Amino acid sequence: MEIEVLRLSHRLPRDERISTHVALVARAFGASSITYSGQHDAGLELSVSRIAKRWGGRLGGGDFTISYERNHTQFIKKRKREGFAIVHLTMYGIKIRKMIDALAKASPRPDKILIVVGSEAVPPEVYQLADYNVSVTSQPHSEVAALAITLDQLMDGTELERDDFLGEIRIEPSERGKKVVKR
Amino acid sequence: MEIEVLRLSHRLPRDERISTHVALVARAFGASSITYSGQHDAGLELSVSRIAKRWGGRLGGGDFTISYERNHTQFIKKRKREGFAIVHLTMYGIKIRKMIDALAKASPRPDKILIVVGSEAVPPEVYQLADYNVSVTSQPHSEVAALAITLDQLMDGTELERDDFLGEIRIEPSERGKKVVKR
Repeated sequence: MEIEVLRLSHRLPRDERISTHVALVARAFGASSITYSGQHDAGLELSVSRIAKRWGGRLGGGDFTISYERNHTQFIKKRKREGFAIVHLTMYGIKIRKMIDALAKASPRPDKILIVVGSEAVPPEVYQLADYNVSVTSQPHSEVAALAITLDQLMDGTELERDDFLGEIRIEPSERGKKVVKR
Repeated sequence: MEIEVLRLSHRLPRDERISTHVALVARAFGASSITYSGQHDAGLELSVSRIAKRWGGRLGGGDFTISYERNHTQFIKKRKREGFAIVHLTMYGIKIRKMIDALAKASPRPDKILIVVGSEAVPPEVYQLADYNVSVTSQPHSEVAALAITLDQLMDGTELERDDFLGEIRIEPSERGKKVVKR
């Protein structure tokens, strides 16, 4: 399954760290790229690209990429035309298990998904364009957490076990301390 | 199972939003409280308390609470003496499924857990005090995401289905749009 992430309406300096976390979660949990709208942020792009290069892409895939898109509505429409199912994460949406079940039953089952991660004020048209408006817990918390849980659920937990990033360095899991291995 | 969260070394203004997200994730995914060390932050406490009050605690439990602790080492030691298993989230730790399996096999099985969420430089003694140093994916991403996945795994996914917060308001999940209901 191919998964892309779209982060809406990035604001500086307010969203600097949150958007970085959103991007790194997208990468670590198996998305292939992140696109963001709002304010252009060369620093965000640099830090995400650096980490993506250092920690690597995956066997059979390229490095995780970040890019900017001025008009997120046009971007969502384009991905829809290309056959992506649009999953918009919002506190107000249906329960995530309901979306996962619906996707499993959909015919044909979508093999490309765009996950849209909002910021404070998401325009109504995003709710209309989404195939699924999805909530993780129906409680206020964090778009970073919602994205992680959604990717984990879409991947059926497999991302927590995978260990096939091909970067310059990788971590050797250890009971205590820090083991970083060069390839 | 009783779960508390400890956020280490909060820094202002850098961690303002990330620590807020950590606290809200703790609440939304079933922890009973968050304690934080580092810089005291009345704004953080106020915003988390307000949300906890408005959105509520749970049947049979009180409201989610936030408190400050100057010395996090002493706090961890105290919780250990009280029978809490200490789970420290770090990129360098063992895989989370390994921790979940170990907890399930532990005898007696701990029914109280303190999850320790680090910041940039975690002192070595935290690694030593922890019963489990645990990583979510062994890749760099976000303490917010790591906490959400860990709570979801510890709760065996049940938090994603629960709907028993007793606040002044709650969300009625909807396919499109926003439905907020007063109790």
